Amino acid sequence: YYSTTACPHVAQSSPEKDLRATAADLVVQLSTSLKTKPDVVDFGTVFTDHMLTVEWNANDGWQTPLIRPFGDLSLHPACSALHYAVELFEGLKVYRGDDKRLRLFRPLLNMERMSKSAERACLPAFDQSELLGCIKRLIEIDQDWVPHLGPACLYIRPTFIGTEPSLGVKKPNRALLYVIMCQAGSYFNTELSLWADPKYTRAWKGGTGDCKMGGNYGGTLFAQLEAGSYGCQQVLWLYGEDHQITEGGTMNIFLHWINEDGDEELATPPLDGTILPGVTRQSILDLARKWDEFKVLERYLTMGQLCSALKQQRLKEMFGSGTACRVCHIGSIVYEEKNLQLPNQDKHSLSSRIATELTDIQVSR
Amino acid sequence: YYSTTACPHVAQSSPEKDLRATAADLVVQLSTSLKTKPDVVDFGTVFTDHMLTVEWNANDGWQTPLIRPFGDLSLHPACSALHYAVELFEGLKVYRGDDKRLRLFRPLLNMERMSKSAERACLPAFDQSELLGCIKRLIEIDQDWVPHLGPACLYIRPTFIGTEPSLGVKKPNRALLYVIMCQAGSYFNTELSLWADPKYTRAWKGGTGDCKMGGNYGGTLFAQLEAGSYGCQQVLWLYGEDHQITEGGTMNIFLHWINEDGDEELATPPLDGTILPGVTRQSILDLARKWDEFKVLERYLTMGQLCSALKQQRLKEMFGSGTACRVCHIGSIVYEEKNLQLPNQDKHSLSSRIATELTDIQVSR
Repeated sequence: YYSTTACPHVAQSSPEKDLRATAADLVVQLSTSLKTKPDVVDFGTVFTDHMLTVEWNANDGWQTPLIRPFGDLSLHPACSALHYAVELFEGLKVYRGDDKRLRLFRPLLNMERMSKSAERACLPAFDQSELLGCIKRLIEIDQDWVPHLGPACLYIRPTFIGTEPSLGVKKPNRALLYVIMCQAGSYFNTELSLWADPKYTRAWKGGTGDCKMGGNYGGTLFAQLEAGSYGCQQVLWLYGEDHQITEGGTMNIFLHWINEDGDEELATPPLDGTILPGVTRQSILDLARKWDEFKVLERYLTMGQLCSALKQQRLKEMFGSGTACRVCHIGSIVYEEKNLQLPNQDKHSLSSRIATELTDIQVSR
Repeated sequence: YYSTTACPHVAQSSPEKDLRATAADLVVQLSTSLKTKPDVVDFGTVFTDHMLTVEWNANDGWQTPLIRPFGDLSLHPACSALHYAVELFEGLKVYRGDDKRLRLFRPLLNMERMSKSAERACLPAFDQSELLGCIKRLIEIDQDWVPHLGPACLYIRPTFIGTEPSLGVKKPNRALLYVIMCQAGSYFNTELSLWADPKYTRAWKGGTGDCKMGGNYGGTLFAQLEAGSYGCQQVLWLYGEDHQITEGGTMNIFLHWINEDGDEELATPPLDGTILPGVTRQSILDLARKWDEFKVLERYLTMGQLCSALKQQRLKEMFGSGTACRVCHIGSIVYEEKNLQLPNQDKHSLSSRIATELTDIQVSR
């Protein structure tokens, strides 16, 4: 499965400048003391033994990629990521199949989205397949960390930060791309409760909501705490005067319902610049379109439409999707001082069917 | 001028938890090799010999503040500032007066704004006057870095980052507050040219535009580069269908004009959640109100109103304000395929008068 290239390296040039190509190959420094692997942990708290780092600077371009023992980064205190959030990340998972082979789930989609985020963040371009080659090598080295049982998996977090050591607000001349991996654990265990209030907005037209940039997340914690004070786990992010449904927490949102015209439909908000183009979102759309059993639409959905559908018993299910949570049934929404109870999940729910199909793809095809 | 408290320390408790108060005082580790001070440098590129760091964690609260030789930070690669932009900063300046004494310009306003940013970012509360005490001690130690000549000064950058070593998107349990100082150099030398296009939005209702959080900045670099491709230095950020004028680059914006009713007026957009409450902005409003020579208003201003005023020769001057740039005359705006030439600056321009008054306050009162 893995690239047979002995030493893949992240390629060479920023599109806007003729940079020295790094001929050097991936360098591997193995850790001399491997960690014990704990059994069950929270998402994103226990990391593997190694990490990948690749430095870039505007004069010399990409440097030799390095796999080294997992450890702290040494960063200049004026580093542009720490002041101006010149930073982005990706999230993908590697599964151990029934046949014991390791499989990444559609990793090129993550590389492509990471490239788009990098462009938007004014970080340099990188060769997507070379980076993926480096990531595969890292997984290979830490492969014992990929769980052997069930649908468990290892979560991979490519991260890309500006490291310009200056306080001017400008395109950085230095950057660091690094990849860490952690136990995925369980993200949400039960069905989700969401809190919907138009007073907070996650993303907006002309902003960065369609890129996986750090700045999209830090501003959301405050609303998440307020959701907690209403007994809800996450925020359902609304947009505009008509309270459009956009995302839930860090998930894309799907409605499975009988639409206004009486047709069965699976719907999710369109990629209009405020929605993160989720890999799981796309996979669900692809799957459902392949089934061809009901309408599958990218369309605007408002809280008004949801409430009508609920009242008229046209809502079949609402669920979220994301790499971390996969597919997550939504049980209730607190909105305009009402606690909306949504249809329950059972084995016939679309989210159950989709979860099963995705697992099949992830571990056995 | 400086607090006579021997060892100020950042105080003790997060409001939501009874934390152990750190009785320990500020610890100072002096650098054994001081740097040479270069003559003229770009803003924010040359840092002083020391820095202040104060760690916080949810269990033990604030730790002993430390002044130590300026150097790299060691950060966990999953640190929440690097992934989710749980980070904020402040900017203030220290001036050496004609009487050789050092003066900070309205530092409590910065401490207050920093507290508000921290609340919005879900970072812990801190004691504003204790932090200011630590900053004064840092300045004292590096006081030779404050220029002796003219209006030059030292720029102080308090920074506050989440350091939770986990990938869950949540309120961090660890944080680091640090302060670095750098030569201010010259920020903008000449009058500014701005590029105004509604396709990018800096901030929006329900977001974080009124806080100095990192995420407000990283997303703006892309538009800044596009401004450059139109021959402009900065972006004039517009908002909404009616193209409201909000900020320019990282500055607040002022219009000095004869308003629609024929009255002389100094106007700047109101603090409606999308505008950073600038310390210089507030100082200019205070000054102009004290003069009581013309109307001074916080009001919405649209590009349409600006264009009408320009056509009818009612515009006297447009300028920006900020700690880094102080007061900066705006010479032209590229908007809807026109290059709007604004009235020139001369010694009678309001921006010249304000700059002189501010300098007087900063170096001699």
